Amino acid sequence: MTHTILTGDRPTGPLHLGHFVGSLQHRVALQEQHNQTILIADMQGLTDNGHNPKKVADNIFNVMADYLAVGICPTKTTICLQSALPALAELAMYYANLVSVSRLERNPTVKAEIASKDFGASIPAGFLNYPISQAADITAFDATLVPVGEDQLPMIELTNEIARKLNNIAGQQVLVEAKPLLSKVSRLPGVDGKAKMSKSLGNVITFGSTDDEIVKAVRAMYTDPNHLRVQDPGQVEGNVVFTYLDAFHEDKQYIESLKAHYRRGGLGDSKLKGILVDCLINLISPIRERRAHYLADQHQLKALLKAGTEQADQKSQQVLGRVKSAFGLSVF
Amino acid sequence: MTHTILTGDRPTGPLHLGHFVGSLQHRVALQEQHNQTILIADMQGLTDNGHNPKKVADNIFNVMADYLAVGICPTKTTICLQSALPALAELAMYYANLVSVSRLERNPTVKAEIASKDFGASIPAGFLNYPISQAADITAFDATLVPVGEDQLPMIELTNEIARKLNNIAGQQVLVEAKPLLSKVSRLPGVDGKAKMSKSLGNVITFGSTDDEIVKAVRAMYTDPNHLRVQDPGQVEGNVVFTYLDAFHEDKQYIESLKAHYRRGGLGDSKLKGILVDCLINLISPIRERRAHYLADQHQLKALLKAGTEQADQKSQQVLGRVKSAFGLSVF
Repeated sequence: MTHTILTGDRPTGPLHLGHFVGSLQHRVALQEQHNQTILIADMQGLTDNGHNPKKVADNIFNVMADYLAVGICPTKTTICLQSALPALAELAMYYANLVSVSRLERNPTVKAEIASKDFGASIPAGFLNYPISQAADITAFDATLVPVGEDQLPMIELTNEIARKLNNIAGQQVLVEAKPLLSKVSRLPGVDGKAKMSKSLGNVITFGSTDDEIVKAVRAMYTDPNHLRVQDPGQVEGNVVFTYLDAFHEDKQYIESLKAHYRRGGLGDSKLKGILVDCLINLISPIRERRAHYLADQHQLKALLKAGTEQADQKSQQVLGRVKSAFGLSVF
Repeated sequence: MTHTILTGDRPTGPLHLGHFVGSLQHRVALQEQHNQTILIADMQGLTDNGHNPKKVADNIFNVMADYLAVGICPTKTTICLQSALPALAELAMYYANLVSVSRLERNPTVKAEIASKDFGASIPAGFLNYPISQAADITAFDATLVPVGEDQLPMIELTNEIARKLNNIAGQQVLVEAKPLLSKVSRLPGVDGKAKMSKSLGNVITFGSTDDEIVKAVRAMYTDPNHLRVQDPGQVEGNVVFTYLDAFHEDKQYIESLKAHYRRGGLGDSKLKGILVDCLINLISPIRERRAHYLADQHQLKALLKAGTEQADQKSQQVLGRVKSAFGLSVF
């Protein structure tokens, strides 16, 4: 069955291996069968970077180049820019009247995000509202499937609540409801073993990382602190090198044999890391080359993003038109 | 000096004599000298009518006809429809990242309005956000002057705060600040003497009121409850009939003589009310005729509103373009 999929990223930095495992490789597969739209969510990026719009603006084409480089194909997937789609802002405006402030404040995802950020007492209104804006993004494309992590489920729930309320007010089905496509992959840790990955923490490998940077990142990886001599038995669980090998090495049987070897002793960390380095360089170097090629031709990048955005504009304007008609506000 | 003025009304009912005294007659004067835009604020009307969009949609052309009937001229004033101006929703989206939730919750106007409405614990997010949307309306036209009542001053303050923040982030002047044009007229009470006037309370005289309705409304007006016989001295203060005569009768000297007569006794309520009836019928009947004429030609009404909206769209897109450029988000 063919689904309409809506997904996207906030352009607040270049994408990295965490995105590859968590979403990008799935999108490359999903585009073969489904009607997929990927939103470069710059407006959402501004909700917690309102005072630093440059950070968002500067990363739009980085993210676009990352998409193309990993194999997201602009003829199979509609890649578009949120800030260039006015219907999304307009839909969010209508939906905001159907959601209470306390409903937004109760949202567990937003609550957790607010707690993790440095807003202090000054939570930007745009940040509290962003689940409404996300509901606009999802419904504007009649998306039936939204790839999310467990923590994002409340967003889909709110989206469907809005859809039902609006359909109910209109007395007809105007908006379709979406289902989550839950990611089965557990989250990739940073190269330092920390759960939170970010370019600013310096614990990520991006698609622009050089071979030297990959070597350096892998060399610094946390293994088993008690595995002091090669002949000692080592622990595989919580060993970041094995986590990365599990995520990226294609020969799963080989990795199992390495794990057995490591557990009984005799497999040194530097040999193990060498295997991961080879694996990651094999994965990243062609992506890096394509990425550099795309970034060198900003004209082409812009043209591709513009074409996708125009297609998305048409679709989202249709949905906005349906909402306005249902409300009696298609005046002209 | 010529100012750029932004003002408007929520189309949640036909306009009435309260609007005439409070804003409409000033706009008729202001359009002669200034660059005036009037927004039919249907999106704002939805912020507390989200579940009843029909109420808002049904009143758009009533309000448009009211404007034309009282003498607002579509060639001198730009009359436009908020929901047909996407730049306003987009600007509001950018501004929402520059205003904190607690700043919105502290807004005294919004606080008072929330207290007076039946939201209970369910304040719509759109309602809490509406001062941001109003800031978008004002700045989108580079308005330098906004006619307001005393209670609306916090809105202008917030608008200017947003303008300053955005200019500061951009490192250049992108938005202009606005000044309030404070109304000197005190608020007209309802025909029942109550401060709150509304069509649903049945205490207003609209521009569609028939002569019979005017007679009935004036007959029911509160005068001086102690003025039982014609020869008794009567009280002018708090006497709704005199409040209306002060507001609408052109011969101020004549009204002063009536007040003196009423105070010393010998002027009966029914005679006094007859004078007000004549005055109001003189005022309203030509407006009512023009109003009916406009409403009979929806095609013309729509064409006029469309022309104004197109002009307003052009202007507001320019301002949005400036904001996006300043943020580095004019991508295409």
